[in-house]
Amino acid sequence: MKKSKKISINKKNKFGAEILCIGSEILLGNIVNTNSQWIAEQLAILGIPHFRQTVIGDNPARLKEAIIEASNRSEILITTGGLGPTPDDITTKVIADTFETPLEQKNDILIDLKNKLKNKHSKLSESQKKQSFIPKGAKIINNYSGTAPGIFWTPKKNFTILTFPGVPSELKDMWVKEASDLLINNNLSKEIISSRVLHFAGISESSLADKIPHLLKAKNPTVATYASTGEVKVRITAKGDNLKETNRYIKPIEKELTQIAGLKCFGVDNETLEELVFKLLLKRKETLAVAESCTGGGIGSKLTKIPGSSKIFHGGVIAYNDSIKQRILGVPKEIINTYGAVSKQVVESMAKGVQKKFKVNWALSVSGIAGPTGGSKLKPVGLVNFCIKGPKTLLTWEERFGSNKTREDIQKLSVLNALDRLRLSIIKDE
Amino acid sequence: MKKSKKISINKKNKFGAEILCIGSEILLGNIVNTNSQWIAEQLAILGIPHFRQTVIGDNPARLKEAIIEASNRSEILITTGGLGPTPDDITTKVIADTFETPLEQKNDILIDLKNKLKNKHSKLSESQKKQSFIPKGAKIINNYSGTAPGIFWTPKKNFTILTFPGVPSELKDMWVKEASDLLINNNLSKEIISSRVLHFAGISESSLADKIPHLLKAKNPTVATYASTGEVKVRITAKGDNLKETNRYIKPIEKELTQIAGLKCFGVDNETLEELVFKLLLKRKETLAVAESCTGGGIGSKLTKIPGSSKIFHGGVIAYNDSIKQRILGVPKEIINTYGAVSKQVVESMAKGVQKKFKVNWALSVSGIAGPTGGSKLKPVGLVNFCIKGPKTLLTWEERFGSNKTREDIQKLSVLNALDRLRLSIIKDE
Repeated sequence: MKKSKKISINKKNKFGAEILCIGSEILLGNIVNTNSQWIAEQLAILGIPHFRQTVIGDNPARLKEAIIEASNRSEILITTGGLGPTPDDITTKVIADTFETPLEQKNDILIDLKNKLKNKHSKLSESQKKQSFIPKGAKIINNYSGTAPGIFWTPKKNFTILTFPGVPSELKDMWVKEASDLLINNNLSKEIISSRVLHFAGISESSLADKIPHLLKAKNPTVATYASTGEVKVRITAKGDNLKETNRYIKPIEKELTQIAGLKCFGVDNETLEELVFKLLLKRKETLAVAESCTGGGIGSKLTKIPGSSKIFHGGVIAYNDSIKQRILGVPKEIINTYGAVSKQVVESMAKGVQKKFKVNWALSVSGIAGPTGGSKLKPVGLVNFCIKGPKTLLTWEERFGSNKTREDIQKLSVLNALDRLRLSIIKDE
Repeated sequence: MKKSKKISINKKNKFGAEILCIGSEILLGNIVNTNSQWIAEQLAILGIPHFRQTVIGDNPARLKEAIIEASNRSEILITTGGLGPTPDDITTKVIADTFETPLEQKNDILIDLKNKLKNKHSKLSESQKKQSFIPKGAKIINNYSGTAPGIFWTPKKNFTILTFPGVPSELKDMWVKEASDLLINNNLSKEIISSRVLHFAGISESSLADKIPHLLKAKNPTVATYASTGEVKVRITAKGDNLKETNRYIKPIEKELTQIAGLKCFGVDNETLEELVFKLLLKRKETLAVAESCTGGGIGSKLTKIPGSSKIFHGGVIAYNDSIKQRILGVPKEIINTYGAVSKQVVESMAKGVQKKFKVNWALSVSGIAGPTGGSKLKPVGLVNFCIKGPKTLLTWEERFGSNKTREDIQKLSVLNALDRLRLSIIKDE
């Protein structure tokens, strides 16, 4: 093992948590395992280091093997799945067997199961009763929305197991209401890790990264960039003893980033472009309508996902067919014939038309070639024209997203680009 | 270990595949690991049994440990991530070190990397060149869209490693174009597993399951139901020596299911409701427009995702504000005042209005209370009215999706319900 001598792991110094998801349906690819990601985030918030995630099927031998491995490697094992009443649900039994501990029926769980039955006079079946057995010495993690409770158990020194059902909503509820506190109160949570995500539009990941090489090298807080369709995210992650301390580390970096990026930084944490447009217009007590061709209703659909969006969003026209652009939006036939439906002249006429017809302060229009067909050398797939008409604004522009992009991506990029430019236009409309 | 004697695993009989995803960003919960699910599905298709999925961070010691474990347990290890040019990307090096094999620079990869550079005259950096090194004796799995290639390597008897980048689109492309064939040609693919998914609307998972208890018990093919918002799926999975054999098992079950469900079964495999509406209208050479209130453009957005949808879809009106229902769609003010915007009378007037204005054969309208506010005792959150107006059809109906549902779910259910009823109306419009 000459080459690999540097690589070794100190087995004595076992620490941190690992996640074990149990369920053949995950192995078969029938469902995406979102639980691991959610738990990973929670562990980070609690400052519990986390080094491994595993998925195995509903197989007792393999499950036992995985539990033993984890108990030799980590301080905390978090399992999901296999707590229900069916014969496939083996988690609790196998955990107890692994540590040679008998199962014990808990009256509290039995009463809870009875209460959750639809008809309270009917009897619990044997398989339902199975859920009331937990290893001797284990604590219950109550399940408020489903039937199967979890356990919090330390079967051997320096090793604690927490079990959760596989249903994401039940797991989350149990974590927030009980498990998180159990981890903190049992001193399993070390230093706090907290993070903030900044959202950027109108800048590429590499040009943003080029502006902040010193931040990307920093250790606490760390700064990392992530790119997705039409957006770049930057995550600032700090470690500390408490939220006050981590905030003290994050704040100056956040300030520096927003100063560097200016208006290109549009939001924090879960904020979206459509929410910012909504908030800006709400503040100005102004209204909006859209005229969408190649996005087919995608902008309207995003805006109306916001509760209360009717206060600013009056609606719009999906002008997919050219005759609709003429008849409903009043775009002159000659303009379409002269310049083509995908042109600055047409989007400007669409925006003016919808602003007038819908009697709104702001109008946003889009017309482009989403592909995969319909492109030409002069007007390739991915060419999209936009117009924003506001109280003092008239802005038309074109984007060339690239003819190698999929129809879906071109539509998505068009929606995000339009919303971002609208946000900037509202801010600048003075 | 009295209780656990039954639980044991035969280490000599190692077989099957496992998946190892490498990347600290997965452990931190920054991204959902969708690669595991996709690979799991592909392994099932190739009939390669699959027992374990693991995620670890960019840590050489832990990575080596995970590779050794897998090599003692399984026949095939599939890794994702850690193939790029940055110092974090350690996968190839650690794999080579684990099996005490030197890395070898491949000229083919070097040429490919050069060609992928934007400016072909610029030089490859040292970190870019790193990607051209693979363990001696390994085959290249070419990466057509990204830079980092993967490897197919059998470092010891009865153990083969395949590596892929973490970018899902690159991984999929490499699997489909090369890796799948490598697995088959090296006799690593055993019996074939093939499956078909049927899609159902307008029926609940439990009522469908109640009609097919005999199918749900079957062994080959197996039949399983899955519920998601507004839809139920049934997956039929058969094992056999070849596709002809698995098809022979699947066909009669598929036939039985479609006979039991009738028109409630709307599609096969990746077919969507909007595609079926598109195909039905295309065949009849008829056109469609929509008038959307609470869905805000969601129906139009779905329809325009289909390439060529302009052949049947002319557009529509997002009539989010009541004044738009009046002014653009011509809904009489008195009807709105008398019955309210969410009423059968209003959706009927909206559908007739958009059919006339847009000069189309079919019109679909929606008006409802998506919440979370705006509900009353008589008209609670989740109440949605619909109307379909076709050449011989006039159908209005209401749904009560439930006031406990989220705004997002109510909008999604409204879109799917509308498209499903439209599909049925077109079929019946004779």
